[in-house]
Amino acid sequence: MSFRADSAEVIFVGIELLLGQTLDSNACFMSRQLAELGISTYRHTVVGDNPQRLEKAVRSALAENDLVVMTGGLGPTSDDVTAEVVAALAGLPLIKDKAVSDAIRSRYPDRSRHDFSSYPLVPQGAVVFKNERGTAPGSFVFLLEHGSQKAILMLPGPPDEMEPMFHASVRPFLETFSHHRFIHRYVRLFGIGESKAEERIRDLLENQKEVTIAPYASMKEVVIRVSQRLKEGDGTDLTHALVEELRERFGACVFEIGPRPLELVLLDLLAEKHLTIAFAESCTAGMALSTLADVPGSSASLLGGMVTYNDEMKRRLLGVAPQILSSAGAVSCPAAVAMAEGCLAKTGADLALSFTGIAGPGGGTPKTPVGTVWIACAREGESTVANKYHFPGDRIHVRTRAVYTGFDLLRRLLLGL
Amino acid sequence: MSFRADSAEVIFVGIELLLGQTLDSNACFMSRQLAELGISTYRHTVVGDNPQRLEKAVRSALAENDLVVMTGGLGPTSDDVTAEVVAALAGLPLIKDKAVSDAIRSRYPDRSRHDFSSYPLVPQGAVVFKNERGTAPGSFVFLLEHGSQKAILMLPGPPDEMEPMFHASVRPFLETFSHHRFIHRYVRLFGIGESKAEERIRDLLENQKEVTIAPYASMKEVVIRVSQRLKEGDGTDLTHALVEELRERFGACVFEIGPRPLELVLLDLLAEKHLTIAFAESCTAGMALSTLADVPGSSASLLGGMVTYNDEMKRRLLGVAPQILSSAGAVSCPAAVAMAEGCLAKTGADLALSFTGIAGPGGGTPKTPVGTVWIACAREGESTVANKYHFPGDRIHVRTRAVYTGFDLLRRLLLGL
Repeated sequence: MSFRADSAEVIFVGIELLLGQTLDSNACFMSRQLAELGISTYRHTVVGDNPQRLEKAVRSALAENDLVVMTGGLGPTSDDVTAEVVAALAGLPLIKDKAVSDAIRSRYPDRSRHDFSSYPLVPQGAVVFKNERGTAPGSFVFLLEHGSQKAILMLPGPPDEMEPMFHASVRPFLETFSHHRFIHRYVRLFGIGESKAEERIRDLLENQKEVTIAPYASMKEVVIRVSQRLKEGDGTDLTHALVEELRERFGACVFEIGPRPLELVLLDLLAEKHLTIAFAESCTAGMALSTLADVPGSSASLLGGMVTYNDEMKRRLLGVAPQILSSAGAVSCPAAVAMAEGCLAKTGADLALSFTGIAGPGGGTPKTPVGTVWIACAREGESTVANKYHFPGDRIHVRTRAVYTGFDLLRRLLLGL
Repeated sequence: MSFRADSAEVIFVGIELLLGQTLDSNACFMSRQLAELGISTYRHTVVGDNPQRLEKAVRSALAENDLVVMTGGLGPTSDDVTAEVVAALAGLPLIKDKAVSDAIRSRYPDRSRHDFSSYPLVPQGAVVFKNERGTAPGSFVFLLEHGSQKAILMLPGPPDEMEPMFHASVRPFLETFSHHRFIHRYVRLFGIGESKAEERIRDLLENQKEVTIAPYASMKEVVIRVSQRLKEGDGTDLTHALVEELRERFGACVFEIGPRPLELVLLDLLAEKHLTIAFAESCTAGMALSTLADVPGSSASLLGGMVTYNDEMKRRLLGVAPQILSSAGAVSCPAAVAMAEGCLAKTGADLALSFTGIAGPGGGTPKTPVGTVWIACAREGESTVANKYHFPGDRIHVRTRAVYTGFDLLRRLLLGL
């Protein structure tokens, strides 16, 4: 196969994207995937469901790239025009993929909502990717544009359909066309801000050669990406030395060198030590529990816990002494400690983490402003640890920062850092 | 002022967007703002910091639109090239905006990181918008393209700088150029799938005139947008009749006509009826609690609850009888009922909602496959209601669908639907 995908443009199809009704998480996902495949993306385009504009966008993308990736507009409804436009461009007839439509019919036996007699349609000769979560399959076609070979990849719009499809079948398929490959390694930090982290590696940032580094931050971590572009044949991996350098500079802040987010690192650590955990959440109100439960298999270490959103619940569910709440208040060291120890006693877990604070926008006082959060960790047979934090930003920001700060506190305690 | 902004293209500048390191929330924000201003957006483009590609993107955007909105690439570092490219295109010299740089210096007296002697630079004669949160100002320039008047608006990339600037000064400024405005109204549904909903309004979808309608779906709702474009002078709102038609066709599935998501509708309903609520969550593991707690002021109705991730916790925290768990199992009608009633008793809430199911990927059986969820609602002095559901998709999908299905079940019970 002579076709090589060096450059790509991604076209996101959907009027709802132009109207700002949905946040396009596909852009983020697709960009990262293509970067890791060594396919350079120079442009994203978002267009509505208008066939003329869509065709124009595809043509202009084909003129400058080997590969055009399109998401959205593949459904059974009349405003789904992506396949039509692409088939016309490629000069291929649209045919019904029997395997796919049979699969759909078997999955939705009582499905009267759509006439599947002529759905889904894919360009003749296209490589078809199965959709395990929905009805619209993905497909990949080659076409000649001004005498040079190009390709178009069509994927469904819903991230929960597109992402599994991409991981399962599209990515392995695209890898066969990638001209050179990238090594990407990720050093993940918690407990240091993005600008502080940048200061600490300014010299490295300013002297990048074959190996490049790029820090980026979210509420959940600071990640430093270490990348090297390998030409065909040349296989020397130069990233290790730099990763070790970063590990040294950031010490205990490094919670992972690799792909795992903090919650997964924590769960793996708990499983390895055969420890169970429970949570007593006030201001975070179930976010810590829910975040860990997002991870498949978390039930091995995660027992559960209580969400106590007012004083009475802290008394009823966690047995916090009324005088603690009346004297020190619900957002205090004694309250956090009592919550964690009460949770430990009532659940029988090996570890209990408690959160109590002011997420805002209301509820702040001069003594305890919005963003103040106490986090305590109680451990079977050990003394309870409690820390006070102040997180900037809005309600979601304060709660998310609190949850991950609690996870990191626990990680450091378990590792004796 | 003869200039009218009927159509716009938005160009997002930043290599980090192409590498998928940041989710571009600006796209969502800007699209909605322009739509509300009655400025049609036909395309979004994301480009890196490369001057040639950026110039090309701006030229192609100018060729087809009155207005080009650019975000990002305005900082003091060398890879911030937006102002340069635009000034060159407009044939305007870049000059230093003294007012702005003085403001910066007074705000960052000890700022040694950057040399502000020649920063920020803006095209001569540009309308400059103050940045209250950062250093890069926004700016707006007119230019002639093929004899017709066009305009370019440059805004900083960070949302926490751009959005306040837009609300404070950019939007009022743009309103003076907007040719006509839109009315957008939203009919929000739960309890019906997107395709079923489309089937039910196919006739309306196929006969759209001045008032257009567009359905779109997420895990949390199906929303039907009803839009009307008002020409200058003409102020008759034709959307009401259509909204009423939709209300009739979808009946109990309509939970909101307006902007409120289901969780907010539920919380408002609870507050209005002076009812408190608590949750007993197994497979959803705190997601229901956390989702309600995301809403400021939710503590008025939300007391808290328990997350019981295994049988022992269901016994310990909710008092579920061991024989229920051993005979019927944890994912069963009796277990869901016992969890809800146990939660009601232990929290003293007026209402308690319980979730128990198999989120997957593991844990499924032929009798109880992955996606099976029991949801029960216990009410003070009334008999407990329990329903069995089966949700498709992965772990996150199953848990999210379960949470919103529980919210909707409660809404319908409270309204007697």
